[in-house]
Amino acid sequence: MSTTLIQGGTVISAIGRREADVLIDGESIAAILAPGHAGAYGIVADRVIDATGKYVVPGGVDAHVHMSLPFGGTVSADDFDTGSRAAAWGGVTTIVDFASQTVGLDVRETLAARHVEAEGECHVDYAFHQIIGDVNETSLEAMTHLVEHEGVTSFKMFMAYPGVFYSDDGQILRAMQNASESGALMMMHAENGIAIDVLVAQSLANGDTDPKYHSYTRPEELESEATHRAIKLARVAGNVPLYIVHMSASEALEEVSRAQHMGLNVFAETCPQYLYLSIEDHLAQPGFEGAKWVCSTPLRSKHEHHHKDLWKGLRMNELAVVSTDHCPFCMKDQKELGLGDFSKIPNGMGGVEHRMELIYQGVVMGEMTLERWVETCCTTPARMFGLEKKGVLEPGADADVLVWDPNGTTKIGIDDKHHMAMDHSSYEGFQVDGKVDTVLSRGRVIVENDTYVGAKGHGKFVKRGLNQYLH
Amino acid sequence: MSTTLIQGGTVISAIGRREADVLIDGESIAAILAPGHAGAYGIVADRVIDATGKYVVPGGVDAHVHMSLPFGGTVSADDFDTGSRAAAWGGVTTIVDFASQTVGLDVRETLAARHVEAEGECHVDYAFHQIIGDVNETSLEAMTHLVEHEGVTSFKMFMAYPGVFYSDDGQILRAMQNASESGALMMMHAENGIAIDVLVAQSLANGDTDPKYHSYTRPEELESEATHRAIKLARVAGNVPLYIVHMSASEALEEVSRAQHMGLNVFAETCPQYLYLSIEDHLAQPGFEGAKWVCSTPLRSKHEHHHKDLWKGLRMNELAVVSTDHCPFCMKDQKELGLGDFSKIPNGMGGVEHRMELIYQGVVMGEMTLERWVETCCTTPARMFGLEKKGVLEPGADADVLVWDPNGTTKIGIDDKHHMAMDHSSYEGFQVDGKVDTVLSRGRVIVENDTYVGAKGHGKFVKRGLNQYLH
Amino acid sequence: MSTTLIQGGTVISAIGRREADVLIDGESIAAILAPGHAGAYGIVADRVIDATGKYVVPGGVDAHVHMSLPFGGTVSADDFDTGSRAAAWGGVTTIVDFASQTVGLDVRETLAARHVEAEGECHVDYAFHQIIGDVNETSLEAMTHLVEHEGVTSFKMFMAYPGVFYSDDGQILRAMQNASESGALMMMHAENGIAIDVLVAQSLANGDTDPKYHSYTRPEELESEATHRAIKLARVAGNVPLYIVHMSASEALEEVSRAQHMGLNVFAETCPQYLYLSIEDHLAQPGFEGAKWVCSTPLRSKHEHHHKDLWKGLRMNELAVVSTDHCPFCMKDQKELGLGDFSKIPNGMGGVEHRMELIYQGVVMGEMTLERWVETCCTTPARMFGLEKKGVLEPGADADVLVWDPNGTTKIGIDDKHHMAMDHSSYEGFQVDGKVDTVLSRGRVIVENDTYVGAKGHGKFVKRGLNQYLH
Amino acid sequence: MSTTLIQGGTVISAIGRREADVLIDGESIAAILAPGHAGAYGIVADRVIDATGKYVVPGGVDAHVHMSLPFGGTVSADDFDTGSRAAAWGGVTTIVDFASQTVGLDVRETLAARHVEAEGECHVDYAFHQIIGDVNETSLEAMTHLVEHEGVTSFKMFMAYPGVFYSDDGQILRAMQNASESGALMMMHAENGIAIDVLVAQSLANGDTDPKYHSYTRPEELESEATHRAIKLARVAGNVPLYIVHMSASEALEEVSRAQHMGLNVFAETCPQYLYLSIEDHLAQPGFEGAKWVCSTPLRSKHEHHHKDLWKGLRMNELAVVSTDHCPFCMKDQKELGLGDFSKIPNGMGGVEHRMELIYQGVVMGEMTLERWVETCCTTPARMFGLEKKGVLEPGADADVLVWDPNGTTKIGIDDKHHMAMDHSSYEGFQVDGKVDTVLSRGRVIVENDTYVGAKGHGKFVKRGLNQYLH
Repeated sequence: MSTTLIQGGTVISAIGRREADVLIDGESIAAILAPGHAGAYGIVADRVIDATGKYVVPGGVDAHVHMSLPFGGTVSADDFDTGSRAAAWGGVTTIVDFASQTVGLDVRETLAARHVEAEGECHVDYAFHQIIGDVNETSLEAMTHLVEHEGVTSFKMFMAYPGVFYSDDGQILRAMQNASESGALMMMHAENGIAIDVLVAQSLANGDTDPKYHSYTRPEELESEATHRAIKLARVAGNVPLYIVHMSASEALEEVSRAQHMGLNVFAETCPQYLYLSIEDHLAQPGFEGAKWVCSTPLRSKHEHHHKDLWKGLRMNELAVVSTDHCPFCMKDQKELGLGDFSKIPNGMGGVEHRMELIYQGVVMGEMTLERWVETCCTTPARMFGLEKKGVLEPGADADVLVWDPNGTTKIGIDDKHHMAMDHSSYEGFQVDGKVDTVLSRGRVIVENDTYVGAKGHGKFVKRGLNQYLH
Repeated sequence: MSTTLIQGGTVISAIGRREADVLIDGESIAAILAPGHAGAYGIVADRVIDATGKYVVPGGVDAHVHMSLPFGGTVSADDFDTGSRAAAWGGVTTIVDFASQTVGLDVRETLAARHVEAEGECHVDYAFHQIIGDVNETSLEAMTHLVEHEGVTSFKMFMAYPGVFYSDDGQILRAMQNASESGALMMMHAENGIAIDVLVAQSLANGDTDPKYHSYTRPEELESEATHRAIKLARVAGNVPLYIVHMSASEALEEVSRAQHMGLNVFAETCPQYLYLSIEDHLAQPGFEGAKWVCSTPLRSKHEHHHKDLWKGLRMNELAVVSTDHCPFCMKDQKELGLGDFSKIPNGMGGVEHRMELIYQGVVMGEMTLERWVETCCTTPARMFGLEKKGVLEPGADADVLVWDPNGTTKIGIDDKHHMAMDHSSYEGFQVDGKVDTVLSRGRVIVENDTYVGAKGHGKFVKRGLNQYLH
Repeated sequence: MSTTLIQGGTVISAIGRREADVLIDGESIAAILAPGHAGAYGIVADRVIDATGKYVVPGGVDAHVHMSLPFGGTVSADDFDTGSRAAAWGGVTTIVDFASQTVGLDVRETLAARHVEAEGECHVDYAFHQIIGDVNETSLEAMTHLVEHEGVTSFKMFMAYPGVFYSDDGQILRAMQNASESGALMMMHAENGIAIDVLVAQSLANGDTDPKYHSYTRPEELESEATHRAIKLARVAGNVPLYIVHMSASEALEEVSRAQHMGLNVFAETCPQYLYLSIEDHLAQPGFEGAKWVCSTPLRSKHEHHHKDLWKGLRMNELAVVSTDHCPFCMKDQKELGLGDFSKIPNGMGGVEHRMELIYQGVVMGEMTLERWVETCCTTPARMFGLEKKGVLEPGADADVLVWDPNGTTKIGIDDKHHMAMDHSSYEGFQVDGKVDTVLSRGRVIVENDTYVGAKGHGKFVKRGLNQYLH
Repeated sequence: MSTTLIQGGTVISAIGRREADVLIDGESIAAILAPGHAGAYGIVADRVIDATGKYVVPGGVDAHVHMSLPFGGTVSADDFDTGSRAAAWGGVTTIVDFASQTVGLDVRETLAARHVEAEGECHVDYAFHQIIGDVNETSLEAMTHLVEHEGVTSFKMFMAYPGVFYSDDGQILRAMQNASESGALMMMHAENGIAIDVLVAQSLANGDTDPKYHSYTRPEELESEATHRAIKLARVAGNVPLYIVHMSASEALEEVSRAQHMGLNVFAETCPQYLYLSIEDHLAQPGFEGAKWVCSTPLRSKHEHHHKDLWKGLRMNELAVVSTDHCPFCMKDQKELGLGDFSKIPNGMGGVEHRMELIYQGVVMGEMTLERWVETCCTTPARMFGLEKKGVLEPGADADVLVWDPNGTTKIGIDDKHHMAMDHSSYEGFQVDGKVDTVLSRGRVIVENDTYVGAKGHGKFVKRGLNQYLH
């Protein structure tokens, strides 16, 4: 097998930074060596990547993406091909997408179908969570089966979207009990969808149909309410570990922090959009422009400290993970479905390409350390979801590597860096004081010199183990 | 009109105690006089009650009772006649019962029907809350009507009992919005009934059918969860004032306290059973005996600080009111419906007769002051529910008076003091270091010398105004 | 003795409002009567005050004033004569001032001396707290003596002002232990004076000498710190009841609320200045103007929610009392001592005349109810400090009455309503939508028709009992 | 230089576990290699350590030890020789001790003197914190100097021990301001010593002289009080990072957690004694036996959840570090100084040898993961105190390694494993389900085959950088 030596860089891990060389043998990391030792031992790699002046970090793990997700009468714009390629462009070498069981469907069949969709299409490695939208004896048995045999160890449920993904508290409780037995992690979209639907209907009846009403009808009280409810149900279900997805609001974070202080295994993620974007600057843009930023949980007001609190949560590990909830829709033909009725705008935003960049900018802004950047974007999502060979640069781990240039610059925008299948960028005009330099996926260089050199089909499905913070 | 002078006693109000005489003219209090002044002014009352050495307090207000409530295939054992007479025996001169709309019923018709049931039957004054169990345009309009025209200014909803009283969060939100406009108070049975039903089914399937499983399947997490949810929904509904009924658990109290600290108009009541009784000593008694104490919210473990915390909550005004949730069922023919299946045991316990006694004992125990006894049992329930002429001994108020003998003793038990239509006592063997001496309802003596001298039909319906803490 | 009937008004108490007449016989309230009953009983008063359209409330109790207080090289500008007369002008009929023991002085002698100063000078009734500034065996014995024999049942200590009033934590603990035994209430000036002195010295060294630096060198962290410390010391001292004076900051309130939620007997007061005034609008006025508002605890920034939080605290009873900390200094000759050095500006502000007015305005603004106005300004300060005959309109209580005209208007200012011995007004230009109409002190009218008709020497010393919330 | 290969083991880091070989070249780690690669690359080490079936972890870092500390009229029983050797026996390869400035001393001189004491005596590497006990211009300047030139980047102050180490709040504030500028970390002994001294004097006066009164006179309120105070002072001092030492009490942890939730850089450590020992089982042993466990902060009651809460705090990272506060005194001649007067018992307990063992037992007990064991005992103490080459097994780091045998057993006790200069063991009779197998310090094996093979003088002073969580 071919060997690669990444030398001269500063290796950043979740627990420190250090001058070191990374030796790759085939698809795995063979060794991490102190500078000079490779040569001293006569190790001659087939390829040498000079990382002098650069950071060498684990390839990013985006634990929450939705490729080709049917939603709101359309399908999210990136498929596994385009989406995973955009991920690669962004230094992300593992994505975790979802198989989706809704009412009447068989869990195992939905997973099998999702395998078919992804197989051979991906540019980077991928794994699956399973959405449970119809709790019954069969689906509960399937949950156990997935954990034990399929490498699918996390289950997402929805307290929002009645009639689509929604589960009631009894269904959630039963699924949580099952996960409590198998050791799986429960993921929760925590918004009170039943109450939201009332507010949406009232808003529309009132003629308030612009995109910004998407957020006004999903107030933070209904996110924090559901967050708290999920936590209490998790306790009743035998203290099943719980992971709240796409947290956007200060009060919801408050609930997570309270639970953590009680010693409960409650985790949460946020996404770049909740750290940077707002109602005022984005969702409430004139006309239908705001539709670009319709996602759920929604963007919040910039006057209410959410941004500040979420950065704080990341810094203090109240928020363990940054993912993107990548779920892009084009304005044309897709977002436009909601012209005149915000409730028909497909919910979602693209970002898989920019997470590493946008959170790195948090380091530049002083919101976190380099180590915490690696931890929240690479190491913790891997450990959280049992991706044992991902998220770290350690011998035996997969050789997924991002060489990051702290002296580079990244301009984000539809005419700048933009490789997602969207007709606009959610972060148009953002500039990042750093740059993806080189990306390797399982030992293969897939991005270098601002050029994509990977290949569809290179990405493989990864079976996952249990949450490594608890096991 | 006839006059009565209660002289020589110590008048206790929510804000102090003072030697004073109470002059009653007809049905109202005409004056409160410093000792000796009645004589000095030549006031000669038709009747003089000597209260020397006794406490003169407002007649009790029990804001939560259920007479003749159809529930669980039977009807609560006290009707308006027996129940209101037992109240009188206990120094309670106002009860607030419920008209109950469930699915398919018309709110105004249920209220009218309840008026028919009570009219001419009561021994003390009564008022009604309205239960809303089916939210729709008609019932929402009826809510406004009741507030504006019927003297019914509080609405109770249930997060428990799916299929019976249960409303979902959207229905609750809509009713709360209505109340927010009319100024009405929302009352909430805060337990997550959907999750509870799962636990109940699992418990029964598991062969765990004894009465104590009633509590095990209604863990405090599901009370505090619902309490928090109700608070958040109330905020979304325009900060409607909210009143949590029959709080039993420390964690639920925690949620109320948090809300109060935020400045929200959130109130709560507890009941004597949650201050004195427990799973271990009562609900888990051998055989089917525990059925006597099956009520919801359920009794809690005595090892978990609930008693202590609830007394603290009362002392610090986190809990504003003590009511009884009086809803008695006999063991024979009623509780027995649940032999072999705790979920079929009618939920409820009788206590309207003993609230003033049991909470007075809290004063003896050092848990609160005399003033706080009067406040939680008389003044606040009256002010909370807009009973403007009740709950205080002040000129112009109704002459509802309890003369309490702090030197007397009360033995509670089926063969001792017991006037409720139950074949057992929930507080069998309890002894209280004080005693109901004389009770007047609108100027008429109805209890004296351990004799009931009131009359069915004396009690009148009282129209209520809005919550006096907010208006 | 002469009788007075105040008729036709609405009597407001802490627990309700009601049309009623107040009959005064000599110095006491003889009766409260429902309208019309006085006539019906043939009661003919020597004097009748028509209160039609007006509120009849208990005379105000200002539990925190400093007349003739030597401080900072001068003496507070109001003496017992002028200060108590200004109080009367403001509807205040009881003031509680302080005897002050500092290092080397004998407690009992300081109290005796204070009696001499006040005797024969006051226009309204007065009582004393005792400041303890030198804890030793003798002063501890004196504390017990004062509680048992002198009607002085509360002791104030200072965590601020090292070298003047300051006590260290050991001294505070010892005094608290003593109070815990005697049942007395501990009052605390809660600011970390040791740390403040460092900041003050640094500020001056830095050339930051303007009045606003008075607040910048007393940050809210050092108020909340001391508040928390006092609470912990009170617990160690056997859960002695604790009363935090002049609370100005949100975080300090947070500590009080936490303690209350734990069930501790911790109380707090705030003052009008902390509800209305700010650094930006007052203390930081150009030049030396801000000196008018130098007081400790200091005014806070209006951008930090203190005003809002303190109003909330008052509404929710986290703050039990409004007092004034009346301690006026003229600009000329007094405040001027601190020209060029804010630390030499005498600390204090005048307000005894305006408390009832300014807090009533809170009712107009919707911050609290009429009942809560009476409770925080009259009833609770009386009950808190064992003034058993004050703060309520009830038979047997002292006939201290304020007739308030809700249709009147009060303009506050040096050329408007202003009767304190100050050469400026702290509330210059404030207008209140209501007005002091008539004031009675122990049955004697002292203010009517915008005229002062009372007399020096009318006011008597009042012995106090223990805190009535606990005993 | 000589090379060593530790092969066949499972390398545990703070972020995962992995089969890997550790290649040591001289004093440093040269490489971490996937199994088999060393051979594949023809790497032949001078020495091979077979770690098959064992855990390979970084050598422990004990960030809080006191060798030869003069205290209470004696000197702690371990000197740098015996103490650092005992550390080695316990798998600890770095200790951080203290130079101690008290009143009148020169900071730099105390550090120099401490260097003299340690130089050539240590068996493992060592670093110093500086105790600041006399804040003045000179000592503040010295603080900056130590950070910039001496590799001493953390300063400990005492809120306890008046007259010995105690600093008042103004002194603390000034030192914190200095640290805020230099980037240093402030360490705090957080107990209110002024209040404690009052309680101690009262206890002794009361005849309560047994060792257990040591704890009764240091109630948890006075630990949590000081903890809160330190946090507030740190905020005032420009948000200087703060590290609370030897946390023993639930309420103190509560304060730290609150601060962390606010986003403050507040850290805390606990020690094995607070996780395992109690008043009831140890300090209150009959006679003078309890003196063995007199340390400050004191042991707490086992009935108050401290143990449980502290384990929880460690698990959730509210507590970042486990150290020992190793400060041993023999019963004979040392502890005996306090016969008949607990306040004269030298405060301290020995434990440097057993920290890795006792916390590993927490893993066995399910209180934490293996990764968290390494993090709290090795990685975080190193990063917290800027020991850049310690606490991790990474290329370039010092070759400090502990090979741990999970199948071994350790019996602790004076006649079992015990190498500290004490005449008793604090953990007599404890048994641990694991065992120190081999220990290397900078590449040199110092413990193997239950034999000590290191050497006095091998240990070197290590200059430290700044806290790596913030820089």
